[in-house]
Amino acid sequence: MKEIEVRTQSKEAMEDITSKVIEEISSSGIQTGMCSVYVPHTTAGVTINENADPSVMEDILMTLQKIVPDSLPYRHSEGNSPAHVKASLIGSSVNVLIDKGRLSLGTWQGIIFCEFDGPRNRRVIVNAFSF
Amino acid sequence: MKEIEVRTQSKEAMEDITSKVIEEISSSGIQTGMCSVYVPHTTAGVTINENADPSVMEDILMTLQKIVPDSLPYRHSEGNSPAHVKASLIGSSVNVLIDKGRLSLGTWQGIIFCEFDGPRNRRVIVNAFSF
Amino acid sequence: MKEIEVRTQSKEAMEDITSKVIEEISSSGIQTGMCSVYVPHTTAGVTINENADPSVMEDILMTLQKIVPDSLPYRHSEGNSPAHVKASLIGSSVNVLIDKGRLSLGTWQGIIFCEFDGPRNRRVIVNAFSF
Repeated sequence: MKEIEVRTQSKEAMEDITSKVIEEISSSGIQTGMCSVYVPHTTAGVTINENADPSVMEDILMTLQKIVPDSLPYRHSEGNSPAHVKASLIGSSVNVLIDKGRLSLGTWQGIIFCEFDGPRNRRVIVNAFSF
Repeated sequence: MKEIEVRTQSKEAMEDITSKVIEEISSSGIQTGMCSVYVPHTTAGVTINENADPSVMEDILMTLQKIVPDSLPYRHSEGNSPAHVKASLIGSSVNVLIDKGRLSLGTWQGIIFCEFDGPRNRRVIVNAFSF
Repeated sequence: MKEIEVRTQSKEAMEDITSKVIEEISSSGIQTGMCSVYVPHTTAGVTINENADPSVMEDILMTLQKIVPDSLPYRHSEGNSPAHVKASLIGSSVNVLIDKGRLSLGTWQGIIFCEFDGPRNRRVIVNAFSF
């Protein structure tokens, strides 16, 4: 079980953590198994999507703002309910297979940490197990 | 493989099942591994989010009602299509690591059963495996 | 690790792949374990929902079109940003337990491949491991 630190710089951000996850998998030495990437926060999430063109991630953030507008009559007094909703829509973990010691991501896939209530110092837990 | 029973009391509800999942993990005796929480229904789901302030869960339900309004021209004749859509948006399972015999949830995280077509008696399947 | 091929016939489609996944599980011989179904694409996803009445899947696609309209000011130049957003909302993998050699799906649950940017030839990776 390894931790990755992510320091987000703005209220909302998409951080590509693919290379950091790959590093952890390599250092684990696992050849065949599963990698779990878990976010232990309630106003952030993790997703798998294209990381080649950064405008894809901007479009996802922009659309989430339309889907979960700041203007709804939220009751949670901390004022960050939209971030909580987005976290549940995106999800708190992703799983990717490990094959021949490598993460089995598709050609265009990257692992993206999603900040919805930053800027903050965040943790991502990476775990790999063989089978 | 253990089952948790959840009896929901209204059309939509968020039920905190964290303590019940923790009980199953403790009784399993597993020290290092993974816990899978799975909902075998198509109009309910499970998510990880804040369980300290119950208004967070109310805000998630309220926002989902805005995102998936009852008024769309649904074709499914049972009339519960919004519940099916919400189930796919939230997801049918979550996975949490087990470390030193304890569920590795973040400080503010709880495991929340999401009812979208109640009231009903529901089942949640909890499974833990070591590695 | 096995691959399922899915040839989608239209821009958007929901393809029931339950029976193909069950075949892979049967041929694996695994009695107790976990099945992971993973989509290595960034404009498609996989979900678990009702497969008895096909109008449920049509309603999910229709609602996603309302949630993620084609008309938003997307920046990604390929023009398929709605498909990327839908992929992150639905998710790229599902996990289902294997018990007594059988997939532990609920009575009404099926495994549905979700095409958001077809028609294309797609791959789905099915992996089962015992514990």
